[in-house]
Amino acid sequence: MNCRSICAVEGVAASGIKEGKFGLAIIRAEGSAAGVFTRNRVSAAPVELMRQQIKKGCLEAVVANSGCANAYTGRRGLDDAIEMTRIAGDALGIAPGRVGVASTGVIGRYLDIPLIRRQCHRLVPLLDRSPEAEASAAAAIMTTDTFPKHALIEAGGFCVAGITKGSGMIAPNMGTMLAFLYTDADISPAKLKDALRLATSRSFNRVVVDGDTSTNDIALCTATGFAGKVNYAEFCSALEACCRSLAVQIAKDGEGATKLLEVKVTGAPDEKGAAEVARTVIGSPLVKTAIYGEDPNWGRVIAAAGRAGIRFDPDSVSLWIGEGKAKCPLVKRGEIVADLKKAKGAMSGNRVSFTLDLAAGDGEATAWGCDLTEKYVEINGRYTT
Amino acid sequence: MNCRSICAVEGVAASGIKEGKFGLAIIRAEGSAAGVFTRNRVSAAPVELMRQQIKKGCLEAVVANSGCANAYTGRRGLDDAIEMTRIAGDALGIAPGRVGVASTGVIGRYLDIPLIRRQCHRLVPLLDRSPEAEASAAAAIMTTDTFPKHALIEAGGFCVAGITKGSGMIAPNMGTMLAFLYTDADISPAKLKDALRLATSRSFNRVVVDGDTSTNDIALCTATGFAGKVNYAEFCSALEACCRSLAVQIAKDGEGATKLLEVKVTGAPDEKGAAEVARTVIGSPLVKTAIYGEDPNWGRVIAAAGRAGIRFDPDSVSLWIGEGKAKCPLVKRGEIVADLKKAKGAMSGNRVSFTLDLAAGDGEATAWGCDLTEKYVEINGRYTT
Repeated sequence: MNCRSICAVEGVAASGIKEGKFGLAIIRAEGSAAGVFTRNRVSAAPVELMRQQIKKGCLEAVVANSGCANAYTGRRGLDDAIEMTRIAGDALGIAPGRVGVASTGVIGRYLDIPLIRRQCHRLVPLLDRSPEAEASAAAAIMTTDTFPKHALIEAGGFCVAGITKGSGMIAPNMGTMLAFLYTDADISPAKLKDALRLATSRSFNRVVVDGDTSTNDIALCTATGFAGKVNYAEFCSALEACCRSLAVQIAKDGEGATKLLEVKVTGAPDEKGAAEVARTVIGSPLVKTAIYGEDPNWGRVIAAAGRAGIRFDPDSVSLWIGEGKAKCPLVKRGEIVADLKKAKGAMSGNRVSFTLDLAAGDGEATAWGCDLTEKYVEINGRYTT
Repeated sequence: MNCRSICAVEGVAASGIKEGKFGLAIIRAEGSAAGVFTRNRVSAAPVELMRQQIKKGCLEAVVANSGCANAYTGRRGLDDAIEMTRIAGDALGIAPGRVGVASTGVIGRYLDIPLIRRQCHRLVPLLDRSPEAEASAAAAIMTTDTFPKHALIEAGGFCVAGITKGSGMIAPNMGTMLAFLYTDADISPAKLKDALRLATSRSFNRVVVDGDTSTNDIALCTATGFAGKVNYAEFCSALEACCRSLAVQIAKDGEGATKLLEVKVTGAPDEKGAAEVARTVIGSPLVKTAIYGEDPNWGRVIAAAGRAGIRFDPDSVSLWIGEGKAKCPLVKRGEIVADLKKAKGAMSGNRVSFTLDLAAGDGEATAWGCDLTEKYVEINGRYTT
């Protein structure tokens, strides 16, 4: 593996280790920091802790483990999360209050603190700004992921990069699974928070694998400042592009997935409505299974849009399958024009896209997901055992 | 087959036929009538027509076809639905305006009117009040259902009975798939409507197979009046029991299902909140796959409850698996007490139940669903082809 994303950002060093199901990653990077978190009412101990810690607007490092979510573990779980920051802080020689923490894995189990201490002490000497070190960190936080996820956006004089993990329990209303973003731009914590919120709302929050919102979603962004002051609009756009790249990778690696599904909705009353319709279509098990079976059952797309709770006139909508030259109309302003053979053809690749025009305004949004396969059932039928 | 449910109601006669994917059922029964319908914005032509027709509060017959949903078929679809009532009305010698109509099947296809005419003329002479005739009607409206669904509740001096179909595209916010209910009680259309609304909200609307709300859901109840005036509260309770029996049959026959899943939520702020939490747990693909794999991953139940949007304190909840003597505690007021071996044992039968106490009020509700299996993917990956 030869990844270069967060290691391209000056001031960032990483390392990671995976032992069976249990992994640990450390990323060192000092700067202003912002985070977005799961909106699940049952949020994990590390999420609770980070909500507090991030208020100071700065971080010097992040430690994240896989295999145990430290979720639904009560007071002991919170103590364990604090202990994780203490272990990492001591090993790194920084204050525990400046160490970010995240967990992913089985819910309702306690952390193995001795294991984390052992892994942490092994990792600190390995911290490095190399593609190999970054790859080891990205791999350490994987659970059912089948590939590590990296993104790097180079803009005028600065860059934004990130790694993420996520494959199941992926749904709207999240920060994301775990995403660690870095930039060398010099951005204040408040502006970083605004930019991160907007970027996640248009990327991670538009990915649905299975409709289950995790208890552990965390996206953290740290700005090391090495590249100095930058144009804010340009920064926002680069951060959004970086998050989008990572979000699409999560969708592509959805548990058991064989195809990436992209749904673009235009003509909605507003962007929020467009996103709602796009996410509802992406999340429909009937749409997802049809994609898997390459069954041109496009009526399911319209039916899913109809239950999204957004006002539109069914007799005015248009629907296409495919992109670019292969774009093929299915419905034109309410009239069925589908050529089912062509439509089936447009489903044969590893990427299927629909464009749905609601003819009810100017709102646009795109959402990403994947097909639903027997493999998803297999993976999740035997997760803890 | 020897079913006796709607044929137990005086004044009801039925017949049905199934030719490949295409079935037709006729049920003759004169009386006051009420209906509830899908809340999907894209609702099928027969649903649109019935919303209008039912306003008169009386019906003399219902005609229902399977194989084609007559949904998303625009003006032509509405004309076709009207034509269906005309064909049936002519054959039965009654006004088309007093014939109810319902369809189920593929969306975005036009009805085969000549086929429906031919089937209708074959069916009218076969109308009968026998178990065999009822069985043929229940079988005629099946699509991916694996067994016909009947229920009969005999109360003091009257009875309530129904048949239903439904296996996929089953989600909250529905009337139901197709349910035809009959009673010999003498009930006014307005009271019948209130009773039907309450009964469906506590039965069909608490079943989730896959979270996809159909375009064609219809539940119709006709009261023939042969048993005379009855106690209204007793009637409501009998109607609810009848709907619940049919709803549980739909859950049990969820596409590809091997296990019935029942989730009872207590201690919610109100009944609505309890139902919301129960439905969210029932609908979670991660809970459903864990049930299938008999994996005691109970944390997924808590995580799903957490995203239901209802206020509760995660540290106060209690959770049990199983029923009666086999009831086994997993969480007691926030403390994990799970014996995973016992919990796995409680998942081995063809019925798995959870009880979740939120300790946040007096609201209670039960919802029903099924596991998610490879078979669901197989059924829905190749539906139209």
